[in-house]
Amino acid sequence: MALIDDLITALQVLPGVGQKSAQRMALTLLQRSRVGGTELGRILQVAMEQVRECSLCRNLTESEICRVCSDNRRDQQIMCVVESPADVLAIEQAGGFRGYYFVLHGRLSPIDGVGPEQLRIDLLQQRIEQLKPDELILATNPTVEGEATAHHISRLVGANVSKISRIAHGVPLGGEIEYTDGGTLTHALQGRRAINLLD
Amino acid sequence: MALIDDLITALQVLPGVGQKSAQRMALTLLQRSRVGGTELGRILQVAMEQVRECSLCRNLTESEICRVCSDNRRDQQIMCVVESPADVLAIEQAGGFRGYYFVLHGRLSPIDGVGPEQLRIDLLQQRIEQLKPDELILATNPTVEGEATAHHISRLVGANVSKISRIAHGVPLGGEIEYTDGGTLTHALQGRRAINLLD
Repeated sequence: MALIDDLITALQVLPGVGQKSAQRMALTLLQRSRVGGTELGRILQVAMEQVRECSLCRNLTESEICRVCSDNRRDQQIMCVVESPADVLAIEQAGGFRGYYFVLHGRLSPIDGVGPEQLRIDLLQQRIEQLKPDELILATNPTVEGEATAHHISRLVGANVSKISRIAHGVPLGGEIEYTDGGTLTHALQGRRAINLLD
Repeated sequence: MALIDDLITALQVLPGVGQKSAQRMALTLLQRSRVGGTELGRILQVAMEQVRECSLCRNLTESEICRVCSDNRRDQQIMCVVESPADVLAIEQAGGFRGYYFVLHGRLSPIDGVGPEQLRIDLLQQRIEQLKPDELILATNPTVEGEATAHHISRLVGANVSKISRIAHGVPLGGEIEYTDGGTLTHALQGRRAINLLD
């Protein structure tokens, strides 16, 4: 079963897939989903070759300019900076945000050799000059490095954007205050909002 | 990101992979393992097209006759009948068995329309006539259907093989008697073996 062994080995390139699950995947495809398996093989090859970074926002796309950046019905007034393409997917799936994005592909981390050049903050500045948004939302993760990245960007582009904001940190919907960690609770209290009784 | 969406959808053909893990797999491959992803795509396509059943034992292989059946250094005296190719992989990985296999690709299940014809028991009988093994091990699973399948095969081929055996059921290595279910314990007691003090 040399070819099956090769398939089992190749499947382990997928994150979170070890020997046993690769084996189960290979046999399930061979026994029950040949058509789906062939199609997956085809799309994998095309995607690995064609997907690249959008030249405007650095999100992943198969075109020179991604779907969001080439959609001129979106809101030019607002731009959102995120660490990774997965963050764009999550925000798009949540709906509600209609502006443009910029993907850093990382966060400032001097230990790992990631500085402003690697995050292409020069490209972010260019994009801000093009779009001239009223507001820039810094949606990096609420980690030490994510906070440092947001702080660094806000200092660099502060002169060009009238409003720079940070996403809110607080108790997640469905979460319980009793089981929320102290740091999150502090943010939730500091970020409290007035209730408008007329709404 | 139409191509990425296609990739995320295609990945969900894999067993146990839903929207969220498919998304993580797609982005991880694109960001960190392009070469591995391309190679996986290639092998998937080749395997889905070329892998078929061995004409002798029905195990999965890319050749007319599988690696085990074409290896004449194996022990012709003993043959092992299993339900699926995954069982062959497990027994081969455990080592210790040096005979030939026959893969049923299922178990008797009248409700699902699986009878002796679907399991190709005619082919098993042909193979027994060719190899003339001294012993046939019935290694179907210890379920009601697996037991029924073993019983059915033993009655059909009983005249052609001098010894027919069933794999032992008992307490697994590392298992604890305290937490072993009653059925397994009954089998473990019935299948007890004398300790040879000279060993």
